[in-house]
Amino acid sequence: MFELGVVYPNNERADRATADALASLGSATVHEAMGRVGLMKPYMRPIYAGAQVSGTAVTVLLHPGDNWMMHVVAEQIQPGDIVVAAISAECTDGYFGDLLATSFQARGARALVIDAGVRDVKTLTEMNFPVWSRAISSKGTIKATLGSVNIPVVCAGMSVNPGDVIVADDDGVVVVPRQMAAKTLEAARAREANEGEKRAKLASGVLGLDMYKMREPLEKAGLRYID
Amino acid sequence: MFELGVVYPNNERADRATADALASLGSATVHEAMGRVGLMKPYMRPIYAGAQVSGTAVTVLLHPGDNWMMHVVAEQIQPGDIVVAAISAECTDGYFGDLLATSFQARGARALVIDAGVRDVKTLTEMNFPVWSRAISSKGTIKATLGSVNIPVVCAGMSVNPGDVIVADDDGVVVVPRQMAAKTLEAARAREANEGEKRAKLASGVLGLDMYKMREPLEKAGLRYID
Amino acid sequence: MFELGVVYPNNERADRATADALASLGSATVHEAMGRVGLMKPYMRPIYAGAQVSGTAVTVLLHPGDNWMMHVVAEQIQPGDIVVAAISAECTDGYFGDLLATSFQARGARALVIDAGVRDVKTLTEMNFPVWSRAISSKGTIKATLGSVNIPVVCAGMSVNPGDVIVADDDGVVVVPRQMAAKTLEAARAREANEGEKRAKLASGVLGLDMYKMREPLEKAGLRYID
Amino acid sequence: MFELGVVYPNNERADRATADALASLGSATVHEAMGRVGLMKPYMRPIYAGAQVSGTAVTVLLHPGDNWMMHVVAEQIQPGDIVVAAISAECTDGYFGDLLATSFQARGARALVIDAGVRDVKTLTEMNFPVWSRAISSKGTIKATLGSVNIPVVCAGMSVNPGDVIVADDDGVVVVPRQMAAKTLEAARAREANEGEKRAKLASGVLGLDMYKMREPLEKAGLRYID
Amino acid sequence: MFELGVVYPNNERADRATADALASLGSATVHEAMGRVGLMKPYMRPIYAGAQVSGTAVTVLLHPGDNWMMHVVAEQIQPGDIVVAAISAECTDGYFGDLLATSFQARGARALVIDAGVRDVKTLTEMNFPVWSRAISSKGTIKATLGSVNIPVVCAGMSVNPGDVIVADDDGVVVVPRQMAAKTLEAARAREANEGEKRAKLASGVLGLDMYKMREPLEKAGLRYID
Amino acid sequence: MFELGVVYPNNERADRATADALASLGSATVHEAMGRVGLMKPYMRPIYAGAQVSGTAVTVLLHPGDNWMMHVVAEQIQPGDIVVAAISAECTDGYFGDLLATSFQARGARALVIDAGVRDVKTLTEMNFPVWSRAISSKGTIKATLGSVNIPVVCAGMSVNPGDVIVADDDGVVVVPRQMAAKTLEAARAREANEGEKRAKLASGVLGLDMYKMREPLEKAGLRYID
Repeated sequence: MFELGVVYPNNERADRATADALASLGSATVHEAMGRVGLMKPYMRPIYAGAQVSGTAVTVLLHPGDNWMMHVVAEQIQPGDIVVAAISAECTDGYFGDLLATSFQARGARALVIDAGVRDVKTLTEMNFPVWSRAISSKGTIKATLGSVNIPVVCAGMSVNPGDVIVADDDGVVVVPRQMAAKTLEAARAREANEGEKRAKLASGVLGLDMYKMREPLEKAGLRYID
Repeated sequence: MFELGVVYPNNERADRATADALASLGSATVHEAMGRVGLMKPYMRPIYAGAQVSGTAVTVLLHPGDNWMMHVVAEQIQPGDIVVAAISAECTDGYFGDLLATSFQARGARALVIDAGVRDVKTLTEMNFPVWSRAISSKGTIKATLGSVNIPVVCAGMSVNPGDVIVADDDGVVVVPRQMAAKTLEAARAREANEGEKRAKLASGVLGLDMYKMREPLEKAGLRYID
Repeated sequence: MFELGVVYPNNERADRATADALASLGSATVHEAMGRVGLMKPYMRPIYAGAQVSGTAVTVLLHPGDNWMMHVVAEQIQPGDIVVAAISAECTDGYFGDLLATSFQARGARALVIDAGVRDVKTLTEMNFPVWSRAISSKGTIKATLGSVNIPVVCAGMSVNPGDVIVADDDGVVVVPRQMAAKTLEAARAREANEGEKRAKLASGVLGLDMYKMREPLEKAGLRYID
Repeated sequence: MFELGVVYPNNERADRATADALASLGSATVHEAMGRVGLMKPYMRPIYAGAQVSGTAVTVLLHPGDNWMMHVVAEQIQPGDIVVAAISAECTDGYFGDLLATSFQARGARALVIDAGVRDVKTLTEMNFPVWSRAISSKGTIKATLGSVNIPVVCAGMSVNPGDVIVADDDGVVVVPRQMAAKTLEAARAREANEGEKRAKLASGVLGLDMYKMREPLEKAGLRYID
Repeated sequence: MFELGVVYPNNERADRATADALASLGSATVHEAMGRVGLMKPYMRPIYAGAQVSGTAVTVLLHPGDNWMMHVVAEQIQPGDIVVAAISAECTDGYFGDLLATSFQARGARALVIDAGVRDVKTLTEMNFPVWSRAISSKGTIKATLGSVNIPVVCAGMSVNPGDVIVADDDGVVVVPRQMAAKTLEAARAREANEGEKRAKLASGVLGLDMYKMREPLEKAGLRYID
Repeated sequence: MFELGVVYPNNERADRATADALASLGSATVHEAMGRVGLMKPYMRPIYAGAQVSGTAVTVLLHPGDNWMMHVVAEQIQPGDIVVAAISAECTDGYFGDLLATSFQARGARALVIDAGVRDVKTLTEMNFPVWSRAISSKGTIKATLGSVNIPVVCAGMSVNPGDVIVADDDGVVVVPRQMAAKTLEAARAREANEGEKRAKLASGVLGLDMYKMREPLEKAGLRYID
């Protein structure tokens, strides 16, 4: 509810084992398992390819051009957390660089998801500290105005509550509400269970048309083949 | 929490008198009164200039290219409501035209706020039914997939809960959480109370530098005048 | 097929009466009548509100920053035509102003649809010469390279063949292939025929849910009302 | 040269009569008269249609989300000036509303050109105070950091020096360097001198192809007419 | 002509040897050889660097958020084909992932070119299945509406007919109409023939000014050197 | 001042040793050392990751779709220079490829910074010739209109004078005015001097809150911790 100047140190987190297990399933499968919702806008891109993580959200709301609260949120990080940073208006400034990354990593953070810019991306890559952001920018920020930590935020078009699970990889960033984490993990695993079999069939030349029995519904919908 | 296929018919609304009173204060004053938060992204533009409304939010979540739930939300409208439509992925299709507007208006809706496109804007203008949208587009939609009505949504970057107050005018769209409506109205009125006096002073040539006593803090911050 | 430096003076046009009759139906209805295809991208906006036209396409392909072919296409205009201008790469320059508009209008053109910029929009508005464009810009152009006239072009994401019908209004720009014009007119008229009755019902408070008999399919699809 | 925290109160302005005379020629003609340079990016749009002004630039550099320097620049305005506001990073916040407009107007400013957002646009329209901006937004700003007044700035992609002439209308915003103002006025008038005659010819059906004698160079460039 | 719900299984393809030979010339050379036309918009980017392919187009038109036709087009793939996917309105959803890629690869497809999003990009990279797309997104799609296969489409601003040659690399995607393939190959080879010699000269310090004999035309155009 | 058709061969350059020394400090530190100004817009991206350069600016102003002046600027390059290319209107065409890169490299250029597109990026990467650009595009250009060399330009929103220092890396492109180069180098080195110590402290788990003594000012600003 837009509280400014507040920090909630004791928010509840999603179950650790569940949060950890979602990483290997990937953002696409988790997004499907939730009913095709929960995905941040696709302008959120990783600063380097190949990272695939999940963790519990610690949220921070900042103002344009001001990263003061980044230092406040650092103290709230617990091992296994992912910091989710929202800005109160569109901004591409570089809120985060190698010094903050060193601090976040020391506190146990696995990643940063920020609806703004980051910098020092070469060093962040060397540190293996993944960031998903809307921009890369050297533009520095000031430390003048209060935001909040661990309040509900909107990041890249998606609601995030502190303690929700974040799943991020090369395909994007998905938010799994804390209360849905267990059910989503189950559904995602079920989805993945028979993917291997499907892949083998398709690789052998079987068509999805046949494997998924689509020919009849397509014909019924009116599809015509014209010689 | 991303529930799909559900309708909540009985959500609580902000106090009617409070919701109604916010319109005349305008989106900028209300946004300031909340502490400079609550504003939807500025790509949300009115389809015609001059409309200035407030009302209680009835929310609807739709899927790209599918406006089926628009008919479901119509039934939930009460006089004084504003429909807030969110889409599960970016889309500029025209979800709404003169027929739906006729229905919404008949139900007592004051406006539509939609993070997608609308069409029939000439007719909507003649009907005096204001819409704030991200696009204008003739592109039609289908009626195939379920969304939800009166769940919390994210519209144009802002969280909206059913029953929140929406204030919209030529400057943009602000969301006032239901629980903050009374306090916000009070703060907005206080803000506006002495605007007349300020305006008169400024019109007479008094500078903000003097009226707001900024010369000393500016000098302290290091401002130099160079002849 | 990307022919550069050619002009086809004798292309066939859609039937005049059919082309003329589509204007009053509007871009949204015509787009629906074609099966929800044919619409240019929604970034194409009219330079002033309220114009609603249809006509037969005379096409021109230009290069970025070069409007030489605008003078070539002027000669090919016949009364009732609409000039459709495509650019070989993205450009927002002002290719067209009041002098060219005077010439086009003298030749009988009804409008210009251009995937670039225009200028002198105040004068064009006074002249009642409507333009749909992606930008307004004072930026001038040179006259140095050849494009083509009356070849197939892609304008704002849509294929346009010379002689096709263009329907444009405040909602956007639709392209009706010449061969589909008669059938589309018929379908569009059928669509519009019962709109008045629908509007009256909706205005009286009847819901689309009932008028379109959606309650059963919605329930079947799984929609739940939660008290 | 990026000086922060400085104000130059005594900059030289372009000749008043010259600056005033450019308005009626319009941004497109002035831009052409300069050799097709000087135009700000076309995302700069007027908040209402029809305004056409010219004046001498008073410049201000601000930081994202901070409008403190707007009050500093107000004091430097002389009758006939246009305030040109640049931001040190991209921002759409509403830096300017009806109170500042009242102050600017009282000081004699003719317009504001700002590479960010404005608000209270309905009131600004009623006040007849034109603004060219990249956005309209209720988003408020703070007063915390120093920028500068009357230093060279880049606004919407164009260099502006204090004292330059600004010409703005519905087609865009052009910057005429102070030292080129007289020569530009002369060239613009020359350009316009024979426009009336050209317009009359074109209105009578004469083609630009003939009026500008383009047929031969087009043929030479290889243009072919294909029957 | 916007036919929906149709599949043309027997379209003619460009000559295989010609289609294959264009890959090594690259998109820039081929685009120049065609007269600087045929290039898709530059927002089309490869999901990984270094792929360089050519092949014959199999086209598919899909609707926003619906990838049903992807399974229909899979059956029409012949070895050496590249699937070109157009969407009837702008969309960034992830229409294509590792399962479909397995199927496409099994059928002999060399690449996908899609004016929308893809997902599973890490796996696609491991599979060496290149994709050029406008977005990367986990967002899933439904299977509900018919599009068409092997009709003419517009993909990223460019007309593509089934059987045309597609040339794609890190610089972009070029479409070579089937009828122009042989002539284009010839012209592209001619262009490349003397590139080695030019490169050697330039590497030795010879200026383009001299190599291309530009000094005289530049002087004639009015270029002045100011000491 | 918008001079077209002129070349200034003898502009003064920033001190070589100073210009060279700025590379290793990186764009973010240099930008901070200047007072958080001087950064080009963040849409300027390197064509490959990892390059980090500094050098003295040779500027060129070109027109949309015309790269003639690229050959003129090549002659003005001295070892240690970076070419900065501005365009008189927005354009994404590929102005520069492997042949020009060969020439630039032979003349001693270290990089190209261009507010448009480039092509042959695979070859440029192999050549280790870094480019920062707004786009990658195969789109070719013509050679028809004069721009200028070594005049002040605006590139990606930033003023650049010939002889200024350019610092570019994965985070962006910073412009250091020639007269500020020495002072900026000193300030940047001072900034970096104690970064190692800070990093060590943060890595050991010390919080920025304590290291920077922020707890008191945050409390004073009103920050509340809510259990």
